[in-house]
Amino acid sequence: MASMLIRGGTVVNADAAVRADVLIRDGVVAALGTGTDDWSADQVVDAGGMLVMPGGIDAHTHLEYPIDGFTTRTADDFHSGTVAAAHGGTTTVLDFVKKEPGRSLLDSYRARRDVAAAKSVVDFGLHAIVPPREQQPDVLDDLRRLAGEGATSWKFFMAYPGTQMVDDGELLAGFELALEHGVLPMVHAENGHMIARETQRLLADGRTAEVFHASAHGHDSEAEAVHRAIVLAESVGTPLYVVHVSSSAAAHEISGARAAGARVWGETCPQYLAVAYEDYAELGEKAAAYLCSPPIRERGNQEGLWRSLVTGALSTVATDHAGFCLHQPEDLPPQKLRSPGYFPKVPNGVPGIEDRLMVLWETGVAGGRFDACRFVDLVSTRPAKLFGMFPHKGAVAVGADADLVVWDPAADHVISAAGSHMRTDYNLYEGMRVTGRPVRVLSRGEQLVGPDGSFDGAAGRGRFLTRGRPQLH
Amino acid sequence: MASMLIRGGTVVNADAAVRADVLIRDGVVAALGTGTDDWSADQVVDAGGMLVMPGGIDAHTHLEYPIDGFTTRTADDFHSGTVAAAHGGTTTVLDFVKKEPGRSLLDSYRARRDVAAAKSVVDFGLHAIVPPREQQPDVLDDLRRLAGEGATSWKFFMAYPGTQMVDDGELLAGFELALEHGVLPMVHAENGHMIARETQRLLADGRTAEVFHASAHGHDSEAEAVHRAIVLAESVGTPLYVVHVSSSAAAHEISGARAAGARVWGETCPQYLAVAYEDYAELGEKAAAYLCSPPIRERGNQEGLWRSLVTGALSTVATDHAGFCLHQPEDLPPQKLRSPGYFPKVPNGVPGIEDRLMVLWETGVAGGRFDACRFVDLVSTRPAKLFGMFPHKGAVAVGADADLVVWDPAADHVISAAGSHMRTDYNLYEGMRVTGRPVRVLSRGEQLVGPDGSFDGAAGRGRFLTRGRPQLH
Amino acid sequence: MASMLIRGGTVVNADAAVRADVLIRDGVVAALGTGTDDWSADQVVDAGGMLVMPGGIDAHTHLEYPIDGFTTRTADDFHSGTVAAAHGGTTTVLDFVKKEPGRSLLDSYRARRDVAAAKSVVDFGLHAIVPPREQQPDVLDDLRRLAGEGATSWKFFMAYPGTQMVDDGELLAGFELALEHGVLPMVHAENGHMIARETQRLLADGRTAEVFHASAHGHDSEAEAVHRAIVLAESVGTPLYVVHVSSSAAAHEISGARAAGARVWGETCPQYLAVAYEDYAELGEKAAAYLCSPPIRERGNQEGLWRSLVTGALSTVATDHAGFCLHQPEDLPPQKLRSPGYFPKVPNGVPGIEDRLMVLWETGVAGGRFDACRFVDLVSTRPAKLFGMFPHKGAVAVGADADLVVWDPAADHVISAAGSHMRTDYNLYEGMRVTGRPVRVLSRGEQLVGPDGSFDGAAGRGRFLTRGRPQLH
Amino acid sequence: MASMLIRGGTVVNADAAVRADVLIRDGVVAALGTGTDDWSADQVVDAGGMLVMPGGIDAHTHLEYPIDGFTTRTADDFHSGTVAAAHGGTTTVLDFVKKEPGRSLLDSYRARRDVAAAKSVVDFGLHAIVPPREQQPDVLDDLRRLAGEGATSWKFFMAYPGTQMVDDGELLAGFELALEHGVLPMVHAENGHMIARETQRLLADGRTAEVFHASAHGHDSEAEAVHRAIVLAESVGTPLYVVHVSSSAAAHEISGARAAGARVWGETCPQYLAVAYEDYAELGEKAAAYLCSPPIRERGNQEGLWRSLVTGALSTVATDHAGFCLHQPEDLPPQKLRSPGYFPKVPNGVPGIEDRLMVLWETGVAGGRFDACRFVDLVSTRPAKLFGMFPHKGAVAVGADADLVVWDPAADHVISAAGSHMRTDYNLYEGMRVTGRPVRVLSRGEQLVGPDGSFDGAAGRGRFLTRGRPQLH
Repeated sequence: MASMLIRGGTVVNADAAVRADVLIRDGVVAALGTGTDDWSADQVVDAGGMLVMPGGIDAHTHLEYPIDGFTTRTADDFHSGTVAAAHGGTTTVLDFVKKEPGRSLLDSYRARRDVAAAKSVVDFGLHAIVPPREQQPDVLDDLRRLAGEGATSWKFFMAYPGTQMVDDGELLAGFELALEHGVLPMVHAENGHMIARETQRLLADGRTAEVFHASAHGHDSEAEAVHRAIVLAESVGTPLYVVHVSSSAAAHEISGARAAGARVWGETCPQYLAVAYEDYAELGEKAAAYLCSPPIRERGNQEGLWRSLVTGALSTVATDHAGFCLHQPEDLPPQKLRSPGYFPKVPNGVPGIEDRLMVLWETGVAGGRFDACRFVDLVSTRPAKLFGMFPHKGAVAVGADADLVVWDPAADHVISAAGSHMRTDYNLYEGMRVTGRPVRVLSRGEQLVGPDGSFDGAAGRGRFLTRGRPQLH
Repeated sequence: MASMLIRGGTVVNADAAVRADVLIRDGVVAALGTGTDDWSADQVVDAGGMLVMPGGIDAHTHLEYPIDGFTTRTADDFHSGTVAAAHGGTTTVLDFVKKEPGRSLLDSYRARRDVAAAKSVVDFGLHAIVPPREQQPDVLDDLRRLAGEGATSWKFFMAYPGTQMVDDGELLAGFELALEHGVLPMVHAENGHMIARETQRLLADGRTAEVFHASAHGHDSEAEAVHRAIVLAESVGTPLYVVHVSSSAAAHEISGARAAGARVWGETCPQYLAVAYEDYAELGEKAAAYLCSPPIRERGNQEGLWRSLVTGALSTVATDHAGFCLHQPEDLPPQKLRSPGYFPKVPNGVPGIEDRLMVLWETGVAGGRFDACRFVDLVSTRPAKLFGMFPHKGAVAVGADADLVVWDPAADHVISAAGSHMRTDYNLYEGMRVTGRPVRVLSRGEQLVGPDGSFDGAAGRGRFLTRGRPQLH
Repeated sequence: MASMLIRGGTVVNADAAVRADVLIRDGVVAALGTGTDDWSADQVVDAGGMLVMPGGIDAHTHLEYPIDGFTTRTADDFHSGTVAAAHGGTTTVLDFVKKEPGRSLLDSYRARRDVAAAKSVVDFGLHAIVPPREQQPDVLDDLRRLAGEGATSWKFFMAYPGTQMVDDGELLAGFELALEHGVLPMVHAENGHMIARETQRLLADGRTAEVFHASAHGHDSEAEAVHRAIVLAESVGTPLYVVHVSSSAAAHEISGARAAGARVWGETCPQYLAVAYEDYAELGEKAAAYLCSPPIRERGNQEGLWRSLVTGALSTVATDHAGFCLHQPEDLPPQKLRSPGYFPKVPNGVPGIEDRLMVLWETGVAGGRFDACRFVDLVSTRPAKLFGMFPHKGAVAVGADADLVVWDPAADHVISAAGSHMRTDYNLYEGMRVTGRPVRVLSRGEQLVGPDGSFDGAAGRGRFLTRGRPQLH
Repeated sequence: MASMLIRGGTVVNADAAVRADVLIRDGVVAALGTGTDDWSADQVVDAGGMLVMPGGIDAHTHLEYPIDGFTTRTADDFHSGTVAAAHGGTTTVLDFVKKEPGRSLLDSYRARRDVAAAKSVVDFGLHAIVPPREQQPDVLDDLRRLAGEGATSWKFFMAYPGTQMVDDGELLAGFELALEHGVLPMVHAENGHMIARETQRLLADGRTAEVFHASAHGHDSEAEAVHRAIVLAESVGTPLYVVHVSSSAAAHEISGARAAGARVWGETCPQYLAVAYEDYAELGEKAAAYLCSPPIRERGNQEGLWRSLVTGALSTVATDHAGFCLHQPEDLPPQKLRSPGYFPKVPNGVPGIEDRLMVLWETGVAGGRFDACRFVDLVSTRPAKLFGMFPHKGAVAVGADADLVVWDPAADHVISAAGSHMRTDYNLYEGMRVTGRPVRVLSRGEQLVGPDGSFDGAAGRGRFLTRGRPQLH
């Protein structure tokens, strides 16, 4: 395999940024150094004025994913989604598998792994979603096997009663098994009963429009579920990961628990940091474009989330990418407007897999909230550690996979749906001017995206990641 | 200058541990790599099975320091102290300067810097202690100049009324100036009035024995001062560093404030983690050996401190090294037993500059509380960042000073006063068996301590560090 | 009806204790005064040196109550139980009704009301227990009617999955209905799933002995349920009453929520204040005598409960009286020892309806924790207010029912099973010497208990209380 | 002395409201009853449809009080002030004494007591203000004597450095003495250093206008002082009373401490509940009318204070009445506008002694926040208990002083300066329409204010109250 020397850049890791050249050999980082005139490589790349960072890891995506039962499916498949990811500087995605009708969770996992393996252009892994026991009574057996096959993270829903919600007994049993097998449990933390009650009240009052989705998902329902999940995890003794924290009240539960010694980590998403309820409150049925769960909340909520990111109460930024088109394309199942004016039927989810790094850099780093090291920690290092991939992924370190992003901190760019590689027909950040973007993206030493915007990776080159235990320090 | 290649070790930084060889050139790390057969160096060192870590940074020492007015002085001077430090794997010390009688703070600083420069064997810096305004009315002018001369950290005493304690007005003025000049304020956080009242009560009750020192310094007096210091710092908008946190209640104030967004960092010391009140409660006048402020607290307090270290509420481990002999040596001013049976006259302070890394490794890493990366963060990386020395110090990174410790994680060692290089005639950890110790210590590429225990550095080779602004991320 | 003048006593109400004579006419307090020489009455009673307090209200009893399905029943029926209550100074009891097999909740209520009315010697009311929806799908209709028939307090179980536990959706629906009808919801706050899991683990480990009952019911399971119940109540906007708070951690949830503005009240019981786990840990199968849910906890837990009583985080003291005999009497269904050595089969509950006032006076008032006014508030005034009976009950006030206790604060008494009127063959407080006891007890002006220990009330004289809305101030 | 029978009213005490007639004999309440046709009295008063409540107790007034050194004095003296108080339904005032120049605290106390005794029309007491030690080195001796002469409450200033502020050492010594003598310590809790710094910054920025007074007194400076005062009081073991809590953040410190068991009580004032910063922000120099310390805060702050009143975190409502005229009257020293445009010179204080009950009834009871019982508790019962006057004052109870207010809950009234008896030329609540006002006011059985607005009390009829220990339950 060809070697490459990236010269003149500043290598940014979670703990330090230093001037260093990077030598890649056989797809991994072979050396870092200065005064490297005597180093030779098949290809030498100039990174003067650039930052060299580990490739982004999006720990929360939904590609070609059935959202609403199995009648609606996200717009992006594993090919379009991972191509878009790569263009945005993300070189690893962790997606989800849920038990499919008529198939066990284990079989569903293997099937989905194979589908993804055939299409992905970047490396990928799968979190397993634990179904309610009644859907598969022997699911604990499958979970044991999944841990051995690299699914070292399992997601539990505390919302969606009747379809995906599990009760506290199932959480406890699942957490216990996770602890036993070195698996990190993840929770979608919203109290499904509270949401159901609010939904019922809203519908009874004739408040069915898209925007009322946010009213149905109160801050309290999210904070309560986070609190409870932490108590349950602590009682079992397992660490815990809370996906897509949207409410600053929920983030506060995490920060308080961490301060008291709990081993809990929180994830948030760019849509909760850079978009607000006020942005879609007046859009009528087009507000559907912004609907996801938990919802995009009031502007006044953002500051608390930022503070939690800065202080470490929240540890990762992923996308929860689950894109749907606003206008119905012919080749897709029903999307955002399949039932206009009636929020319970809008498929939940927003796109973002391509935008994540640029949006977070612009608002976080360029915005003066934290530095490039913390940025790398949030988008790459911490997810790599928590999901058992470090230091192969998540660091520009000797011996690590050469998943690298050459980042131009001075590049100007305007985000738009038209300029994106995601299949959705709108972009949450349409028109946002950002400073800083990837100009070269490598996966295991192979250049996927070049400075001229060229793309080189073949569908199926992405490898499935058999992940190990979480690293919690 | 000679080059050196350290081969076969595992390089441990705060964020990752990777197999890599380290090439040193001109006193700095020139490269890190694997497959380095084609790399040449003047000297090649085998580090197979060893860890290669950044040299320890002890951010809190008192060498040849007048403690009680100017009649008592710590046992170690800048030579014996830094030699001991180096033997323990510490390659940078940050000591303090206070205004000397008859001299301005600025002049005291320059004088002490020169004294230290003539004797130190490792690099060093000085924190400036801000005296009560009445001792030097124009002290703010001196502080401004000190920031420009590399003293980018100033310490304020909230204890010791009548000698060093400053009131809230002085704290506010000092914090404001610190913010303006990019200086990190440090506080000795104990409420001096509360301690004075308790002391008075104890003496009135005839409770004058050494052990009552601990009773005089309540948890509440420490927690209150930490709370107040944080409020004052937040009101000014400055970050804050709390030295030698001993009480888990005080640590709890820090964790709560951090969870709420405050930019505050706490330091603790090995004596608070690995020694307990119960260890000296029955020793009579020999309890003097354990007296320091804040005091070494009850065993039940330790768990809270450990939890704070693990969760990040506490960020650094320093020593507060201020050693005094128990039996009076001829060549030193009065030491621990100068006034037996009367705790207010016992000079406060304990030795530990040489023991720090070994004790923390044994109890923290070998004890299963955290991994080697977190260890490096606590003893080297975080102090380097907070005190404006990163990444020159605090990381094994390309371009950084080659202050390195080759650490044998399997080496057995028993700590003892006899086997130490500190001048004190006792050791707090006497008889403690540790697994893991430094076998080779380098300062700017020069070997100070060799595997055979040899020592090579000349007095005065240590350089004064003109430190920059704190890095808070 | 005869009139009575109680002369020379000190009238103790929740807010004040004053020297005053009490004139009773037609079963109610007609006047309070001093210098009453010109007042005449059919009977004049001397209360010199005595306290005259409102009769105790025990807001939590289980008389002739089926506990474990319907095979086990508490030892006391409404006659023996209320006779015992009266002897202890309690003149009102609030018991519970649950849906009986084959009968609606409403029918069960009416039937139980009639049973109680035929036997009770003191006035009484019934809280309605809300069954899981599957047991009675139309239960909300019944609840509406119950509110109209005086059951203005409904109890929900968060424990006992599969039998009585309701999920968060049912809690929300029930709370909403309660709010609409001016009903106070009550919760048995323990997380049933957490208890089930711990029970399972204990049994799997062979830890089946009686004492492990306490291990199965963790502090965290109680605190979590209290937290969740408060969140759910706040989301609906209803006040909330938490029965039998046993854990100081749970009490802390209440105090925190109250400090933040939540309208939540907590009840505790004498057994949690005056008995400890250590008292039965070594008793083998006789520990069964102490088993109740939540369990009697460690001695170290008591101080937190006392503090909560003193500071008002806890507002009432009831008994949860559900007595079972230790040795099987011939005329009762299986009692405490029906399945020795296997804690899950021990019927839960302890006696105490007769002991409550004496134990709380001894430990609370004589113990110096609070005064007689607070005592009256805890055992009478506050329950009267919360359960819609004030000021007819709960105060020595003009116009109020003359439910009075003449209390001799200097009387010595030793509590014993032999000296009690409860049917259980043991007493939790056996051998406790108390100072202070009732010497005369009146119900609506009729003397039930006289100074010589005589008893006068006929079965069935007690009236059913059609209660009104809670008074929350 | 004449007897009086008040017929047909509803007697409202802190714990209950009942229909009862009130018989007064020899200035005290002799009896309460119904069916009192056979009761005779010299005078029978009809109170049909009225409430009969204990007279209000204003625990915080400043009558003829030197505020700014001794050049400025409040507008009301003990005569005009107590006449105004009586018209507003207040029958007891607790004022303050501070050490006068050239006189000891004890002598100042006796002198002020005599001045007040000669002028007051209602009963009164004096809190003693503890001066900084340097102003009177032997002040602790005086304090001891003051406790014996009925000054069982001492106030400490944590603000006003250089004039009245005491440091933590003085607080501790004073608290200790208070505990020893059964005295309740009171604190003006604002951090004087923080205020001084903010003032300095504002003045340096040219922000000298009246409105910046509020900016100088941050929420954090109040909350910090409350926190510290509680820690110090807890360390000594004394209960504590915090005067004029204005910030919801400070109230939150109290509620948190109470929840954790601290014996601390907070007072607030009508001006913090019913007036807001926004009301005077635009008034230019006339904003001086609203200046007091702590300041009247933002409207958004009010809700937190109300919640604290409702939940009991705050326990009393007093006025801090310290009225100054806006337009300079000839017969008074310089008042509000003595230095227009320069906030540090505006005498601090607002009037309100006459308005307190009406404003709190309107906003609290008529506003639906709490009932008449809680109202009585806040304005009369609780201050009577805390300041050692209960049950002589603070209750309509047999044996209590007949300090009574007959309150017409249906009376309409518009508050105005013109319609007031206070000497100030403006009223904070000008134009506020209230429902509910006193129609008859009695002091020790003597009618001061009649239904026709007549006033009968002679200057000097008010008695000095030699108060006892605080009742804390």
